[in-house]
Amino acid sequence: MGSTKDNTRSDKHNRILKAAVRVFARYGYFNSKVAQIAREANVADGTIYLYFKNKEDILLSLFEDRMDGIIGDLRGSIGDETDPFRRLTKFISLHFDLIRKDPDLVSVITVELRQSAKFMKEYRNDKFREYLDIVEDIVNDGKSTGVVRQDVSPLVVKRGLFGMINELMLSQVLSRRRNAQELSQLAKQVIEISIRGIAIDPEQAIENGCKEV
Amino acid sequence: MGSTKDNTRSDKHNRILKAAVRVFARYGYFNSKVAQIAREANVADGTIYLYFKNKEDILLSLFEDRMDGIIGDLRGSIGDETDPFRRLTKFISLHFDLIRKDPDLVSVITVELRQSAKFMKEYRNDKFREYLDIVEDIVNDGKSTGVVRQDVSPLVVKRGLFGMINELMLSQVLSRRRNAQELSQLAKQVIEISIRGIAIDPEQAIENGCKEV
Repeated sequence: MGSTKDNTRSDKHNRILKAAVRVFARYGYFNSKVAQIAREANVADGTIYLYFKNKEDILLSLFEDRMDGIIGDLRGSIGDETDPFRRLTKFISLHFDLIRKDPDLVSVITVELRQSAKFMKEYRNDKFREYLDIVEDIVNDGKSTGVVRQDVSPLVVKRGLFGMINELMLSQVLSRRRNAQELSQLAKQVIEISIRGIAIDPEQAIENGCKEV
Repeated sequence: MGSTKDNTRSDKHNRILKAAVRVFARYGYFNSKVAQIAREANVADGTIYLYFKNKEDILLSLFEDRMDGIIGDLRGSIGDETDPFRRLTKFISLHFDLIRKDPDLVSVITVELRQSAKFMKEYRNDKFREYLDIVEDIVNDGKSTGVVRQDVSPLVVKRGLFGMINELMLSQVLSRRRNAQELSQLAKQVIEISIRGIAIDPEQAIENGCKEV
């Protein structure tokens, strides 16, 4: 009985977050009303406030929850790989796959989230750091095995690569025309530039990093 | 007489924009009031509305005006250079100099501007395109003189490099500790990664691109 209640609670929580992604992506964060999210989630307006304090809390919870998913997917995808460049390739590819799989989520992350001053100035911390650390680890491993240049700063790469990917994702969700082929070309460009940018032996790195991906 | 009037008009216009940069950087775009900008500019509240429709119009005019300045500085700085990698080096360096010279402006561009939905979804166009085209021209020139890889997409480089620089500028204005040395190290990292990322002969490109800069 308790377990059923928990499931119902977790189910409603998820339904509200799913609805919020759609509503934020469609109307924009500022124009969205909590009542619209309730309607989209098929719950009563008051129900939302059992789970979330306000609209900004929905946005921040959404970020936490979806980042958990993205971090899990990234770790799952690169987990078996030992070559740092193949890991980087998979890290980058997964982002461009996400544009195709869940454009609403990408739109919320790249456009709407930045419209929360709280997120930009105070919040953008634990999950974001955990996400960035995946790249830091890749770069550090590559330095310790001697395939990434010693003078490369993992801090600059993790933040710079995020900026690069984020901006290209943003330009994709804001443009109406886009197709799977274009997205995979984009991913390929970012992969080549990043690998060549940090590798000691770029040609070898590209050969290792890009095979069968 | 007409010229004096024009000067007064242009002077007030500039004072308001200057004040707006300080106010937006200090209180954030959303929390800022037009009355605060008027006080900071030492003009009457009503005067602002002779020049601007509303707070968002101030923000967008500010962007136009400052982008003109930045584009002018970039063109001035790289104008004499023929080597594409030296031009890229100067393009990147100027951004990191700006963090030191005008952190309030960098804060408005990287944080506050993104909080205008209008800017993000509709507006970000002419000036931004003009700015990005500087990088596109550098990459195209490098391809035509055979020093940049033929398969590099100028579109990806201009947008990706902007994303990279923008994210690193953002992380700098949000962090309290920063010094000139750290900024020049950051610039150096971005320069090396970008040049190596696109060059046919990375070692030669770094030697040409970074000498005496």
